[in-house]
Amino acid sequence: MKAEPLRLLMIGFGNVGQKLVSILSIEKNQYSQLTGFSPQIIGIFTRQHGAVVNYDGLDLWNMLPLYKKHEGFIPAHPEYSALDTNTAINELDYDVLVELSTLSIENRGEPALSYIRSALKRGKHVVSANKGPLAFAYRDLQILADRNNCFLLHEATVMDGTPVFNLARTALKGCRIMRVSGILNSTTNFILTRMEEGLPFDQALQQAQQMGIAEADPKYDIEGWDSTAKICILANAFLYGDLTPPQIPKEGISGISDRDIKTNLLQGKRLKLIGSAWLENDRAAARVVVESIPFDHPFANVKGTGSVLQIETDLMSPLIIVHLSPGLSDSAFGVINDLLEIDFINKNNL
Amino acid sequence: MKAEPLRLLMIGFGNVGQKLVSILSIEKNQYSQLTGFSPQIIGIFTRQHGAVVNYDGLDLWNMLPLYKKHEGFIPAHPEYSALDTNTAINELDYDVLVELSTLSIENRGEPALSYIRSALKRGKHVVSANKGPLAFAYRDLQILADRNNCFLLHEATVMDGTPVFNLARTALKGCRIMRVSGILNSTTNFILTRMEEGLPFDQALQQAQQMGIAEADPKYDIEGWDSTAKICILANAFLYGDLTPPQIPKEGISGISDRDIKTNLLQGKRLKLIGSAWLENDRAAARVVVESIPFDHPFANVKGTGSVLQIETDLMSPLIIVHLSPGLSDSAFGVINDLLEIDFINKNNL
Repeated sequence: MKAEPLRLLMIGFGNVGQKLVSILSIEKNQYSQLTGFSPQIIGIFTRQHGAVVNYDGLDLWNMLPLYKKHEGFIPAHPEYSALDTNTAINELDYDVLVELSTLSIENRGEPALSYIRSALKRGKHVVSANKGPLAFAYRDLQILADRNNCFLLHEATVMDGTPVFNLARTALKGCRIMRVSGILNSTTNFILTRMEEGLPFDQALQQAQQMGIAEADPKYDIEGWDSTAKICILANAFLYGDLTPPQIPKEGISGISDRDIKTNLLQGKRLKLIGSAWLENDRAAARVVVESIPFDHPFANVKGTGSVLQIETDLMSPLIIVHLSPGLSDSAFGVINDLLEIDFINKNNL
Repeated sequence: MKAEPLRLLMIGFGNVGQKLVSILSIEKNQYSQLTGFSPQIIGIFTRQHGAVVNYDGLDLWNMLPLYKKHEGFIPAHPEYSALDTNTAINELDYDVLVELSTLSIENRGEPALSYIRSALKRGKHVVSANKGPLAFAYRDLQILADRNNCFLLHEATVMDGTPVFNLARTALKGCRIMRVSGILNSTTNFILTRMEEGLPFDQALQQAQQMGIAEADPKYDIEGWDSTAKICILANAFLYGDLTPPQIPKEGISGISDRDIKTNLLQGKRLKLIGSAWLENDRAAARVVVESIPFDHPFANVKGTGSVLQIETDLMSPLIIVHLSPGLSDSAFGVINDLLEIDFINKNNL
């Protein structure tokens, strides 16, 4: 059976969205040959940079140069659309909503949360790289997805494209996850590593921003919100929790002094911002705290922008996944991986 | 649809087989409730300790005490079978051959290799924890499996139950693996760690044997054959190679002196036995060598019986999977995981 190509509606067109388009277009022939996967993007909607729609599939090849030249999708663009995002999600014909806008803690995941609800209510699959909706309404959204017989996947929300949720769903389905913990935020880990090398906090943060790894609002990183959103999603997905970020005790790294760093190094330890989630009387609990990690612990050598997750189960000894220096294509890969899974499910009528 | 339970024919009944029976029997109610997975073992055949068959499913509850009491399956056992293993594989009615006998390098994977061929030719799925057949005939066996529309899975052959092959098959299917490397043998890693702590080689080996972690023939570990068999399977599975262990350059650890260990420690390094496989002019190549690993490398903190694998792909930055101090249930879990996948495929007619 030759199935129809998967039709995607994308919300947000920042770094991850652009990398995704680049993988699927410039590298398209190679990519679809390699994987047999060749989706169509039928629309891209942004908050401040216009929108494009083409039911035959957008012209991905010319999209990035045009978008960069005009700093957005402008009315002169041959595929320009004046639809608003809500209407597009509720009325256009697509298979998967790909939500790539950025985390908003203040707005408790909105407006992305409403976008995702609308799509699921229509029975459309959703792939989200945006942590907000999953952190604030994981349980609700999964129930809504189940009820409408569709999938809500979100691999890229934690550790970029590192297969964390995919692993739990497939390779660990025969055992029960009891605890997860790890270094989940690249920016703070980068800053702590630079401080160990002697750089003051402010300069280290500035470097992270110049590298483009910090969240749009750096306080999300520094104050631990990003780590909290991630451990919240992990607690809800792995431990069947129903937590939201404000319910999770958290620390940031802004209170850490050069002296704290040095004292720890002299004792053979590194300070790391660690998110943990575990079962307490059969209920999920979580926290984000700065911990002193001895040099010989597997977390200690995860430096710079690296991240790590330790998964403890009932049947296996602890499993640790380390991701060294992730880049943009890692996040895009997380999205692609989810799309591949939906494509597989579609083709096999599962 | 309520599918029939998966019917298993087991070859070998050592530590892993016994643990598997224990998980599926003593913990059976809980396990099948948790996973919805409730297979029947219809036969167990051993090389030197007799065989049992029961088409209604063997009595797992009483099996281990009886087997231990009589040091094998004896003719007085109510389910005793006088069939020989070849006949059983060729004539009994089962869904999956579970091959759990031990690695044989001298016999190039035989007799397990022939057992697996016979089962695949009959269109039976195979789950193997035995490295031999996969290391010596990976490509042939996979072709035979494809041709007969059945699966040959082998998660437990590398890093016990750590989802390595499962990960590549599902979570990494959207990218191309370019290189894998890691610490693959527990016994040698344990010995090297103990030598760093000051123990002589012989005593460290003796400890490993007392702990039951060494291969039946310890020279398989010490001379690097076990690591070679594993990197061979990885090269063939991940890099589409067609290698056999004797083609792979290898080193063991018996030439390492206390002084080598100390010299490296003073330089901030640890000696580790590293298996690597990579693409060379689009062809898989592999080797097993002792390498000096700096303290701050992610491999350096994998001590004792731990193992680690680094996977490099075309789309993602390197991914590292660490398994700390694996136990017997880890290997059994690898087998269960493969069975769960076959069960899923069966139930959904994939």
